[in-house]
Amino acid sequence: MDSFAELMRKRRSVRSYLDKPVPCDDIRAVLEAARLAPSARNRQPWHFVVVTDERRRSKLAEICGQQQFVAEAPVVVVAVATESERIMTCDIPAYPVDLSIAVTQMILAAAERGLGTCWIGYFDQEEAAKFMQIPDDHKIFTVLPLGYPADEPVDKERRPLADMVSFEVFGGSREGTK
Amino acid sequence: MDSFAELMRKRRSVRSYLDKPVPCDDIRAVLEAARLAPSARNRQPWHFVVVTDERRRSKLAEICGQQQFVAEAPVVVVAVATESERIMTCDIPAYPVDLSIAVTQMILAAAERGLGTCWIGYFDQEEAAKFMQIPDDHKIFTVLPLGYPADEPVDKERRPLADMVSFEVFGGSREGTK
Repeated sequence: MDSFAELMRKRRSVRSYLDKPVPCDDIRAVLEAARLAPSARNRQPWHFVVVTDERRRSKLAEICGQQQFVAEAPVVVVAVATESERIMTCDIPAYPVDLSIAVTQMILAAAERGLGTCWIGYFDQEEAAKFMQIPDDHKIFTVLPLGYPADEPVDKERRPLADMVSFEVFGGSREGTK
Repeated sequence: MDSFAELMRKRRSVRSYLDKPVPCDDIRAVLEAARLAPSARNRQPWHFVVVTDERRRSKLAEICGQQQFVAEAPVVVVAVATESERIMTCDIPAYPVDLSIAVTQMILAAAERGLGTCWIGYFDQEEAAKFMQIPDDHKIFTVLPLGYPADEPVDKERRPLADMVSFEVFGGSREGTK
């Protein structure tokens, strides 16, 4: 397969999907990528709901601010945090970290199979949780459409490494520290 | 290279490191993996401090609750969130998501090169930020040692897929929905 660098470059957010089913084995491989993710204290505080029903996908698109491509995708995975209260010692909430690792592995596993995804954070938490019948102490983390891309890749601009890396201390240069 | 599934299985948390330098090109490739990460609205709200100085690594080990392997690793990357206030529409804070995607790509890029990492959330935020000279409105996201593993792989147990996946609604079975 591609090198991991190539895989990362292949992954992109897809906002238009073909009307073409996703093989079950590929859906399983994408879920398996989440299953293999590391999590703080190996708690695996996640659950994934696979939505394929057309009416339910349409309703999810509506809940995601009328983003119609959510309904276009033949599969929508709703990622759920099953613990949402724990804060790590470093004062950062644990669930967005654990869930993000799992979802990142999913989107990369999807990209490896030529499948597109789009990590959606634009939805009403309460409305989505009610529609998906999520328990009160859980939280919907993201809505992730999954399918074959119908749009053209758009390269997002990235800041150069020199703008986001320093040495030894924040803002420290390589020269000052060697 | 390995398939992505093999790469995910190869990645593990390493808590003992060889006294063997990490080539600059590999450090660069690991940082490049963060640079390529997607982020909400492409804000790329991150900064990475590469620490190689031995005394500074020792101090970081101390700040991370005396986890001595932090000092053992020849390189420690301190990942910093440069925005820590933004909340997404879905009521989830944005910075742990953006930073987690970047760090996940880093740990996988490291694993591809035979390098070990350990995602550390056990440190005092205030003490670490002061030591690393982090601006007040930033937050240290994780301390990530990077080096060649000296310990034996331990397989962490994972829940089976059937325990973490349902269909159409939370708790829904495949049978009920098809």
